[in-house]
Amino acid sequence: MGYRNPLPLTVLTEYFARLPGIGMKTAGRLAYYVMSMDEEDIEGFARALVNVKKDLRFCDVCQNLTEDDLCSVCADELRDRGVICVVEVPKDINAFERSGYNGVYHVLDGLISPIDGVTPEMIRLKELLRRVTSGVDEVIMATNPTVEGEATAMYAAKLLEPFNIKITRLAFGLPIGGALEYADEMTLLKALENRTAFL
Amino acid sequence: MGYRNPLPLTVLTEYFARLPGIGMKTAGRLAYYVMSMDEEDIEGFARALVNVKKDLRFCDVCQNLTEDDLCSVCADELRDRGVICVVEVPKDINAFERSGYNGVYHVLDGLISPIDGVTPEMIRLKELLRRVTSGVDEVIMATNPTVEGEATAMYAAKLLEPFNIKITRLAFGLPIGGALEYADEMTLLKALENRTAFL
Repeated sequence: MGYRNPLPLTVLTEYFARLPGIGMKTAGRLAYYVMSMDEEDIEGFARALVNVKKDLRFCDVCQNLTEDDLCSVCADELRDRGVICVVEVPKDINAFERSGYNGVYHVLDGLISPIDGVTPEMIRLKELLRRVTSGVDEVIMATNPTVEGEATAMYAAKLLEPFNIKITRLAFGLPIGGALEYADEMTLLKALENRTAFL
Repeated sequence: MGYRNPLPLTVLTEYFARLPGIGMKTAGRLAYYVMSMDEEDIEGFARALVNVKKDLRFCDVCQNLTEDDLCSVCADELRDRGVICVVEVPKDINAFERSGYNGVYHVLDGLISPIDGVTPEMIRLKELLRRVTSGVDEVIMATNPTVEGEATAMYAAKLLEPFNIKITRLAFGLPIGGALEYADEMTLLKALENRTAFL
């Protein structure tokens, strides 16, 4: 009979190992660490896990995550409602918020991907169309520069074309602080294509 | 007012970030991932967290973690009780079990470390002394090759000296499969010191 870890430890290890980017070794280390935590902290952790799904819902307007009817961006009266930045998932919003963007968002909650069986009806495109009917000047397509991201941006742009508003796409090029040496060909090609007047 | 993530997400992120080796960015990613899990799985995860501390205790004999009075090693009648391998923490046992070691263990649950305020009385040395009084042939000091590990091994060895049993220390040298090029000086020095007859 081979040695086995005590069952409660094995069970917790397996749960940790299901999280993205956490292998069995790290999961085991984390499970051992939990044993050294205060009982109170462990219970808080357990409650936080359950609450994150139970207490969160989608914003009525932009489909961002929120505890209330409206997310904190849509509830903020100082935001510019004329510009909608379309992102794939709620966490993409964090990156834009750090950059100082002052418009509002629309969360698609996925990307069109025939291979994974995700059709246009399965992401929040209908909700986007419903929003652009009133007082919107510009929609920024801010999906990732992947095949699915590009395809979804293109599909959404086609849907929005009849509304006669500005439809833009994030610029792709060299990252600030990045060295030419390490740039891949696609990035360099985009940086060349989108070069801007300098002097 | 700056943008903030919904509170339940922030709370869960902070709990994840307390785990060793998990920074705020990874923690945020994990918290978002939990949102995509089934409610049932999340509740199982939460239960596993609470149970790991509640359902585990220390083995009456070797201080390893167990759900019962005895850990699975001490309960196994086929193990050689004449050899005790002394380790720092329960998870060190896993490494030895993979190597095919067939003796028993003793978990010190820490190392002597005056800097951190850990005195010899605070680790499980008394319990070790109590065990060596009957039918033990050898005690293997298997603490890590750190200052505290060496000091604790030395301290324990001195305590065991009067019992007239074999006291050994794990061999240190080049790891199998490791290249000389990457070995540090201390390892090489140990490998030289402990060189064995070859032909």
